[in-house]
Amino acid sequence: MALKTREEYIQSLRVQKKRIFLFGEQIKDPVDHPMIRPSLNAVAMTYELAQQPETFELMTVQSNLTGERVNRFTHLHQSTEDLVNKIKMQRLLGQCTACCFQRCVGLDSFNALDVVTSYIDQDQGSDYNRRFRRYLCHVQEEDLVVDGAMTDPKGDRALSPSQQSDPDLFLRVVNRTDSGILIRGAKVHQTGALNAHEILVMPTRALRREDKDYALACALKADAEGLLFVYGRQASDTRKLEGGVIDVGNQEFGGHEAMIIFNDVFVPWDKVFMCGEYQYAGELVELFAAHHRASYGGCKVGVGDVLIGATRALARMQGIENTSHVKDKLVEMIHLNETLFACGLATSAEGHASPSGTYMIDLLLANVTKLNVTRFPYEIARLAQDIAGGLLVTMPSEQDFNHPEVGPLLEKYLVGASDYPTEWRQRLLRLIENLTLGPGAVGYLVESMHGAGSPMAQRIMLARLADLDEKEKLAMKIAGILDDNGEAVRS
Amino acid sequence: MALKTREEYIQSLRVQKKRIFLFGEQIKDPVDHPMIRPSLNAVAMTYELAQQPETFELMTVQSNLTGERVNRFTHLHQSTEDLVNKIKMQRLLGQCTACCFQRCVGLDSFNALDVVTSYIDQDQGSDYNRRFRRYLCHVQEEDLVVDGAMTDPKGDRALSPSQQSDPDLFLRVVNRTDSGILIRGAKVHQTGALNAHEILVMPTRALRREDKDYALACALKADAEGLLFVYGRQASDTRKLEGGVIDVGNQEFGGHEAMIIFNDVFVPWDKVFMCGEYQYAGELVELFAAHHRASYGGCKVGVGDVLIGATRALARMQGIENTSHVKDKLVEMIHLNETLFACGLATSAEGHASPSGTYMIDLLLANVTKLNVTRFPYEIARLAQDIAGGLLVTMPSEQDFNHPEVGPLLEKYLVGASDYPTEWRQRLLRLIENLTLGPGAVGYLVESMHGAGSPMAQRIMLARLADLDEKEKLAMKIAGILDDNGEAVRS
Amino acid sequence: MALKTREEYIQSLRVQKKRIFLFGEQIKDPVDHPMIRPSLNAVAMTYELAQQPETFELMTVQSNLTGERVNRFTHLHQSTEDLVNKIKMQRLLGQCTACCFQRCVGLDSFNALDVVTSYIDQDQGSDYNRRFRRYLCHVQEEDLVVDGAMTDPKGDRALSPSQQSDPDLFLRVVNRTDSGILIRGAKVHQTGALNAHEILVMPTRALRREDKDYALACALKADAEGLLFVYGRQASDTRKLEGGVIDVGNQEFGGHEAMIIFNDVFVPWDKVFMCGEYQYAGELVELFAAHHRASYGGCKVGVGDVLIGATRALARMQGIENTSHVKDKLVEMIHLNETLFACGLATSAEGHASPSGTYMIDLLLANVTKLNVTRFPYEIARLAQDIAGGLLVTMPSEQDFNHPEVGPLLEKYLVGASDYPTEWRQRLLRLIENLTLGPGAVGYLVESMHGAGSPMAQRIMLARLADLDEKEKLAMKIAGILDDNGEAVRS
Amino acid sequence: MALKTREEYIQSLRVQKKRIFLFGEQIKDPVDHPMIRPSLNAVAMTYELAQQPETFELMTVQSNLTGERVNRFTHLHQSTEDLVNKIKMQRLLGQCTACCFQRCVGLDSFNALDVVTSYIDQDQGSDYNRRFRRYLCHVQEEDLVVDGAMTDPKGDRALSPSQQSDPDLFLRVVNRTDSGILIRGAKVHQTGALNAHEILVMPTRALRREDKDYALACALKADAEGLLFVYGRQASDTRKLEGGVIDVGNQEFGGHEAMIIFNDVFVPWDKVFMCGEYQYAGELVELFAAHHRASYGGCKVGVGDVLIGATRALARMQGIENTSHVKDKLVEMIHLNETLFACGLATSAEGHASPSGTYMIDLLLANVTKLNVTRFPYEIARLAQDIAGGLLVTMPSEQDFNHPEVGPLLEKYLVGASDYPTEWRQRLLRLIENLTLGPGAVGYLVESMHGAGSPMAQRIMLARLADLDEKEKLAMKIAGILDDNGEAVRS
Repeated sequence: MALKTREEYIQSLRVQKKRIFLFGEQIKDPVDHPMIRPSLNAVAMTYELAQQPETFELMTVQSNLTGERVNRFTHLHQSTEDLVNKIKMQRLLGQCTACCFQRCVGLDSFNALDVVTSYIDQDQGSDYNRRFRRYLCHVQEEDLVVDGAMTDPKGDRALSPSQQSDPDLFLRVVNRTDSGILIRGAKVHQTGALNAHEILVMPTRALRREDKDYALACALKADAEGLLFVYGRQASDTRKLEGGVIDVGNQEFGGHEAMIIFNDVFVPWDKVFMCGEYQYAGELVELFAAHHRASYGGCKVGVGDVLIGATRALARMQGIENTSHVKDKLVEMIHLNETLFACGLATSAEGHASPSGTYMIDLLLANVTKLNVTRFPYEIARLAQDIAGGLLVTMPSEQDFNHPEVGPLLEKYLVGASDYPTEWRQRLLRLIENLTLGPGAVGYLVESMHGAGSPMAQRIMLARLADLDEKEKLAMKIAGILDDNGEAVRS
Repeated sequence: MALKTREEYIQSLRVQKKRIFLFGEQIKDPVDHPMIRPSLNAVAMTYELAQQPETFELMTVQSNLTGERVNRFTHLHQSTEDLVNKIKMQRLLGQCTACCFQRCVGLDSFNALDVVTSYIDQDQGSDYNRRFRRYLCHVQEEDLVVDGAMTDPKGDRALSPSQQSDPDLFLRVVNRTDSGILIRGAKVHQTGALNAHEILVMPTRALRREDKDYALACALKADAEGLLFVYGRQASDTRKLEGGVIDVGNQEFGGHEAMIIFNDVFVPWDKVFMCGEYQYAGELVELFAAHHRASYGGCKVGVGDVLIGATRALARMQGIENTSHVKDKLVEMIHLNETLFACGLATSAEGHASPSGTYMIDLLLANVTKLNVTRFPYEIARLAQDIAGGLLVTMPSEQDFNHPEVGPLLEKYLVGASDYPTEWRQRLLRLIENLTLGPGAVGYLVESMHGAGSPMAQRIMLARLADLDEKEKLAMKIAGILDDNGEAVRS
Repeated sequence: MALKTREEYIQSLRVQKKRIFLFGEQIKDPVDHPMIRPSLNAVAMTYELAQQPETFELMTVQSNLTGERVNRFTHLHQSTEDLVNKIKMQRLLGQCTACCFQRCVGLDSFNALDVVTSYIDQDQGSDYNRRFRRYLCHVQEEDLVVDGAMTDPKGDRALSPSQQSDPDLFLRVVNRTDSGILIRGAKVHQTGALNAHEILVMPTRALRREDKDYALACALKADAEGLLFVYGRQASDTRKLEGGVIDVGNQEFGGHEAMIIFNDVFVPWDKVFMCGEYQYAGELVELFAAHHRASYGGCKVGVGDVLIGATRALARMQGIENTSHVKDKLVEMIHLNETLFACGLATSAEGHASPSGTYMIDLLLANVTKLNVTRFPYEIARLAQDIAGGLLVTMPSEQDFNHPEVGPLLEKYLVGASDYPTEWRQRLLRLIENLTLGPGAVGYLVESMHGAGSPMAQRIMLARLADLDEKEKLAMKIAGILDDNGEAVRS
Repeated sequence: MALKTREEYIQSLRVQKKRIFLFGEQIKDPVDHPMIRPSLNAVAMTYELAQQPETFELMTVQSNLTGERVNRFTHLHQSTEDLVNKIKMQRLLGQCTACCFQRCVGLDSFNALDVVTSYIDQDQGSDYNRRFRRYLCHVQEEDLVVDGAMTDPKGDRALSPSQQSDPDLFLRVVNRTDSGILIRGAKVHQTGALNAHEILVMPTRALRREDKDYALACALKADAEGLLFVYGRQASDTRKLEGGVIDVGNQEFGGHEAMIIFNDVFVPWDKVFMCGEYQYAGELVELFAAHHRASYGGCKVGVGDVLIGATRALARMQGIENTSHVKDKLVEMIHLNETLFACGLATSAEGHASPSGTYMIDLLLANVTKLNVTRFPYEIARLAQDIAGGLLVTMPSEQDFNHPEVGPLLEKYLVGASDYPTEWRQRLLRLIENLTLGPGAVGYLVESMHGAGSPMAQRIMLARLADLDEKEKLAMKIAGILDDNGEAVRS
């Protein structure tokens, strides 16, 4: 069976030998490191839900490659139903983890690479798609977590890769041999990289002939020789090290970001899916980005559900859940959240088959989805803070609640509406803090802003994809400037 | 063949004998009245496009009742594809008319009534659904325009129908005989009523036992004895009477609203589809409203396309289309417009079959769609006015442009970027004026606000349909308050 | 006494011989023309309130030039108190007319010209300021309405005045003689020009040496030979011609816009205040614009007061004034309206004396004020439409209400909450229609957008006036990059 | 001389014996505790700037009580100039600390108490105002930091103080003796309490006769017997304990919040300023709140300046400062920030003298100011994150930058535009993180939301203070319903 259990997944990571740096020290055992473990738990949920009967249908799907039931995170979408189910699966996981579960970048990379490699093969007579699909069969059979690695450091943004003073500021091929290639550079903002089995490298922008060496897509083991990971800090990250259970807000789950440095890493040819075909880099980026932009219409909606639920529960514990302004703000939060979901669903429902049979989403709507994601979670978070009240940022630490003298005083004075323990209020406040000012906000807000491209990237795509000339014609017909055939009316 | 031509439709209206009042006078020939004709032209477009090869597929569909190809505006949706196509058809018509084409209310009424009459029959053993479907077959075969009439005058809104000082403030049955019923009251805000063949009456709110006489759904000919129509004024309405071609902004198309007064009108039993079953009034209203709220995610998007196109074309004629702020504002307009479309599509794509086989849209998303429609067109219109410039509201009349002395001076001084006639600029400014300050704004803005229910109605539905308790549970699990089984964790 | 009565003002216009075109015909008697008269009434209110004891203090002020009590609309501000009182006077007039009262452009022109002419004189040894002040004494003594004429047609916006294919697209000097100059061109968007005694011409943009002939400021009688006015259309403008009293919305008051064409008009030297000094054109424009941008923080707030009041009154007559969402929306309208007022007040309170003694407002805050004015009235109007309900755009004409058969039926069915006549509801709906979709919206919305410069003009000024380098230094100190002396910290 | 130096201030705190709990432990030396010290540095800046020649005028003022030059934070405002200068002083301090400097609550309390005690004395013949002013002389002479303590824990918000199950949930008098009173309860959200010399207690809401014991205003030493402080956690608070200099974002300054518990604390009569006069509690709260709401139009604007500056500097270091969308976003940030300042200034400029001579601000505008503060900083922060880019939340720790192997790799790969050290970029990113997701965001965002009352509190005041009836009259006159005398027009 191609589906790993949660435990098998965790065990499979223990045997890896990644070089990981955190706070200036190399981490021996990332799986059990308290800073990293919550993010691993979030990924593990993608395995756990695939085993549970009530979520099995949504989380798994029959592979068009192997014929087996595989985790949907490793699947090439074969219908708009697949695309819609992807969004629903992402919302479910957001609801169950209240954070980024890190497996979407890989999924979106697979679906983009499959389409683009088939284009290359068709044009150039190459063999990339077969190679890629063979690799993907392996991923499906082993139920692997694959980190899609796209964003290069970029240096001076006004310059192309080959124009940079340091040629390594974009990941590149530094040597080609019969057996494979040697690559050097770095990838930043790598969500969940420490929990991955594999790294799947792709270019980060459109390229020109002189940037040939940067036109690179390939897969490598996450503990390959020469790879080095540096953990990215997050707000309130060290609360996970304090040993408490409340102040961390979301005790079990979290996300993480890492920077990956490639110090001349070897990749064998059978894991190379693009190498020099610079003409296709732009399309690959665009297609991946569109898939990933649509994904935010699922996952962030799930996190939004948790934030809305936390806010409503806290309002109840503070005795204000029936106040008209509180109800109205909750409705607004719901409205914004469901608007994001509607965008994600529509992007999927309007998908269509590519020549390889793999389904693509609607490109225009994918960008619309993401642009809304760069706005609405911020407003939802603001409204959550409005309802939560000032205690959100003035509440003493859980150690104070546990102190023999101070604890009972805090219990006495910080009681909310009767019937609810003060600790429940405390826990909900810390969860809302987590999601709006803490590590959860990194995922819910800033990642919503910049993940899969900053807002300006979506705006550029909208300008390109919306057919403004056609709209002008519609208007000029109505205005009596053009006739029904689109010819200028003679006056 | 069940499809009327545009000409047949117009002819079919000529033989009617509606009593219509406008500016204090009874109108003899509404079909050729310059105030009314543009709205009739907009309805006629629903016939015309059904005849054109390139839009035939979208505009027509095989009826599940008659097996014939019928106009989609008379169809009971039999799949999510049907629901999605409805939205796309509405966008198309908005693009071709830049106004309300008035036939959606009937369509949405059919689909709501079919579902609710089948519920009544199932519970009460009545025969409404068969009766209704027989009526609908007639509508399909004759390709009729049916005005769905819902909104009663309501009087004091704090009081139920039977509590009003005047019992007629909600439409009601005043007499029952063997052959039929006699009804009295009024319906306000009747979009396109003057262009309809039939009026399909429904209750406007949930009812209680004492409001039994108001639980009424039935159809009647639009020129039935005792009916009286009063035309509703719109901004700049009389420009249509001036005899010009430019200042009217949208010369060919427009919408209209009318008030219908029912002075003891007789309806035979075979056109009565609810009479006294007050328990179902609320559900009928809700289901109709949901269908109609979703519709706005199609039609207003089409009008938005025209407004965006007009703004871009005008920017070009004023030589500013490549200015970065103009491009950015156009992108924002597109983004907002497509967000509405995404909502409409998702509402349809997430539809599901009712027991009668007729498809229902997603209720929650339908309300999300409409709530966005009460906001985004206003911002799109504001941005259009921003780009259009002050001449939008200071330009002399077309008569001045035609004056022998003044005309050449206006031509000289109001020239824009070269290559474009001043008249084109003039026409586009008048179109944007029409859509943001004139009769087009009635449809694009105020109807977007209040049609199918004012924003508060959507908010109330969102509060009811979003499962806040479930969201609370998600949050309390993440916060460590509830365990995986939803039980409170013991501390 | 320097203060004209309302009647004297009206009489003074009757003796003028302006050439005015409207709907392709020359108007004989503009003072009594039903399209124009409401705008004249609005100007007349600036005279009327100056006579009433309770508003005398606010409306008039002791002139620094003549020592007499003069209308504040002719005054050079001598203190921040004067500047603050200007804003308050504007709000008062907006409240009393619900439209543009047209006298601010002149006032703002006086204050800008006084400062800039004194700069020119100081640099160039010219005599413009004394000339201008002598002219202004005349204006004060005769209590004249002066139309500040700034906006040229501009043609191709990418080209400077002298680069245009037609040199007349900016107003210019075509001949200089011993006695005066001859000018040719046009000014568009001339608010209230038909009600003015004088036209005060100024350049519309910064100029270069080659545009010398366009560097022109001068005054001329509004009925000078060679001047021609063309009336600008507004939404629903012809309702004023219908002879009714209700549908017009605001029966007594209104604004108007006109285009002025200068066909080689002669101006004697003593009314010329800039002629060729291109270096000062930019500063004059900027200073005028700043004064006028601040003005919107007064007048539009007054109109907003009327719109808020109309909405609240209508809500009361519809029985929903105590609904929580209605109350909340009214609060939002108040909040936005008062934010505009706060901006206007602050701009004035932070004013300072120029070298000539005339007070200037705070330039940065003036632009902040106006930029908010391009947004908030739109949202206030949207909220008004939300509360008003659909009848706003579906109500029959007043002729129908007066019809013997239809009228009583409308009375019966369109009754609101008891205690209020249906006519009151009708009148308030028409007023709100006027202000949000009719001629009032021209002033309240589109003029708020473009008057005194479109939003982009304010944004450019904000970018220039906000000292971003200084802000960078603040941040770099806090970040530990710079030390207290602003030097880079050595690491 | 009444002005303490920075060093004298710090020394004066060292001798205090406050009982402070943090992370479950009692703190021995708060002055040098790394968690607390940055907040003390921010307060110290109020002393330091009062000594510097260039800020002396703004920071100090001649006392109307002592005739001495005193720190403005201890002054009773004697003019609108004083009120305006307060706002400017607050902006300056926000610019110099990028955080809350904690001394405003005391200042705003003084000015509210002075007015209200004079009212009580006038009505009741009491002696509170003289007593209070004597106390304030002491504060001025010793240049003390006084924590204004208002917010009680409140328990069940639906119940009044005396109705609570635990009578201590609002601070109250538990005993009265000849020498003084004994008080019990708690105050939450006490900004900067650990850095204060004195606590000035006030009631938190309007009270009724049965709540007499809660009508309490008095001052006490911050280290009085029976007082206990518990430190409130903030996002990323423990970064201050890490020993680094960069990741903390704002190394020198910060804010803090504490909870104060009053375990039967004694207060002598000469420090009691209200005791039982429940009728005045509401007015005191309202007046204090208004002063404090206005304050946010100063301090948060200063913090906004730093955030804008940091964003612009970072954009420069990333080579995108001239991109049109970046410039446009910076303009938007400036616009929003200056709108807040305009509101603060207008609130002050429209102030007026109370009977005691102490100046009150404009109540309506104070609430308008604060309501904007609950919105705009959130949008400014969102825009800052937009421009900052994803590295804001993925950058490795400063320890990693210092690691011998990893550090150089980070230097290599995280370089921005040339000419700038990578460390500068790192520092600016951490500052923006601090202000939008870290401890700075507690002050800049959540405190902006809830400080001086949550948004709903401002909305309630706006509904009360805006004269809606008057606005209705304006509208009904324009609509022709009322005549000039406010009488209904007869039809």
